[in-house]
Amino acid sequence: MINKLVSKIRKTGAPVVVGLDPMLAYVPEHILAKAFHEFGETPEGAAEAVWQYNKGIVDAVCDLIPAVKPQIAMYEQFGVPGLQAFQKTVDYCQEKDLVVIGDVKRGDIGSTSAAYAAGHLGKVRIGKSVCSAFHEDFATVNPYLGTDGIKPFVDVCREEKKGIFILVKTSNPSSGEFQDRLIDGRPLYEWVGEKVAEWGSTCMGDSYSYIGAVVGATYPEMGKVLRRIMPKAYILVPGYGAQGGKGADLVHFFNEDGLGAIVNSSRGIIAAYKQEKYAAFGAEGYAEAARAAVKDMTEDIANALSGR
Amino acid sequence: MINKLVSKIRKTGAPVVVGLDPMLAYVPEHILAKAFHEFGETPEGAAEAVWQYNKGIVDAVCDLIPAVKPQIAMYEQFGVPGLQAFQKTVDYCQEKDLVVIGDVKRGDIGSTSAAYAAGHLGKVRIGKSVCSAFHEDFATVNPYLGTDGIKPFVDVCREEKKGIFILVKTSNPSSGEFQDRLIDGRPLYEWVGEKVAEWGSTCMGDSYSYIGAVVGATYPEMGKVLRRIMPKAYILVPGYGAQGGKGADLVHFFNEDGLGAIVNSSRGIIAAYKQEKYAAFGAEGYAEAARAAVKDMTEDIANALSGR
Repeated sequence: MINKLVSKIRKTGAPVVVGLDPMLAYVPEHILAKAFHEFGETPEGAAEAVWQYNKGIVDAVCDLIPAVKPQIAMYEQFGVPGLQAFQKTVDYCQEKDLVVIGDVKRGDIGSTSAAYAAGHLGKVRIGKSVCSAFHEDFATVNPYLGTDGIKPFVDVCREEKKGIFILVKTSNPSSGEFQDRLIDGRPLYEWVGEKVAEWGSTCMGDSYSYIGAVVGATYPEMGKVLRRIMPKAYILVPGYGAQGGKGADLVHFFNEDGLGAIVNSSRGIIAAYKQEKYAAFGAEGYAEAARAAVKDMTEDIANALSGR
Repeated sequence: MINKLVSKIRKTGAPVVVGLDPMLAYVPEHILAKAFHEFGETPEGAAEAVWQYNKGIVDAVCDLIPAVKPQIAMYEQFGVPGLQAFQKTVDYCQEKDLVVIGDVKRGDIGSTSAAYAAGHLGKVRIGKSVCSAFHEDFATVNPYLGTDGIKPFVDVCREEKKGIFILVKTSNPSSGEFQDRLIDGRPLYEWVGEKVAEWGSTCMGDSYSYIGAVVGATYPEMGKVLRRIMPKAYILVPGYGAQGGKGADLVHFFNEDGLGAIVNSSRGIIAAYKQEKYAAFGAEGYAEAARAAVKDMTEDIANALSGR
């Protein structure tokens, strides 16, 4: 799957992932009204609204981008109907040949991580049959529990040719509270980055590993160091746009080959119609606004990369 | 909810939580056969088996214990039907007046943690109505992202009078890889423990905080230090039994008042019938075997506490 991701990034020229994090406040009124009319102001209604909203965006941007990243929390908050919408979204994006990164940030002790890995990336045995549950292509994983919480994911990645992105340095303001603390003179995130490189060396694609890392766009200097520590890890970079990261901040996350990083934007794309810049599209044109925002983001990154 | 937990621990005399982590391999043949007959060897069949299995255990032990801890990964691996079984399990346990600790180990950047907190402990607004999704009483939370990933959970706890247990020192073998690394001469888990005490000071119940901690039974010496660092935090202690923790290891997790800790056992209870000690119950008597194992565990802990 890392090979497919790299090949799609090359083909689209867009190291861009659209975050499908559909807060109800982003969903245009006409979609909400229709869903609530049909299912009421219920979790089922919210799930339907989110699904229709996603579908519009995916249809509008799928030829421009290699991948999407649905944030499962935005679906899980609506319970079982929400998770049905998550599953429909994953399936629909795969029909459109997009690589799907499940932003699930799971991670637990070994046997439990194995269940998460099976449910999101692999298969479960039920009696004599074998089923798969959410079947994303990649998942994000939390490293706090160490190797035995990660290994079951790595095993499933190797078997299924899928991938994970491990949280190394997150984009949020307080990420430094623990992640930046110095251990033998070096911040925790560097130690985690070294482990990512080590775990990743056991399952390599053609040029990059199945095991990638999450490093926030909001910390470009740290990205520079981590790029060096994990040369074969694809870096998933959240925090561009609404969280404050700019194109110029991103160059350090890429390798000399122009590859090695994929930049996420969620709100900045899916709720672009709410920005002054794209206001002319109106709420009815939210999907076209998202398309315009994807093009602008791709150009911003290309300019930053060509200018380095 | 922390007050209810403390009061139920006092009433039952059992600082014990039963982990409802239903691996299919634990489910007795007669339950599997019935569920597969009805729903096939499908996620729906697995979910039905898991739910019936749980129900039998809950019916057999609910008068002996204060709380249960369903591990959501074991349900999530079966996709949407699995999560329906999770929800039914949570609801059924609450009908039986058990405190429900959702072992979900979520944690993300602020807005995303807010969605998880709403979905598991709080409410979501959908149009003009207000709904709740999984409504556990407590949830487990991963601290790697720092304060702004935790605060949305704390806010919901304060509002809903619910609680969280934050991973401090986990029970698995490689937990030390990052958690034990020294920062200014003290291990990371102590720094996390101090934050737990700080976050917890902002939402206190009568004698303990809404904000607790997870510390593995497999690390009793560390438990001793953490008990002192977080005197008002309830400690959820996994790792007893199958993972190797013994009653004598547990005394350090408790305060002088005999409170302050609740010990989880999953496999050791719910699959007790597979142990030689309880083999006489047979697979048909799995729930009664679980009841006997709960009694033995409660006695083991009581002996350890009275002997200190």
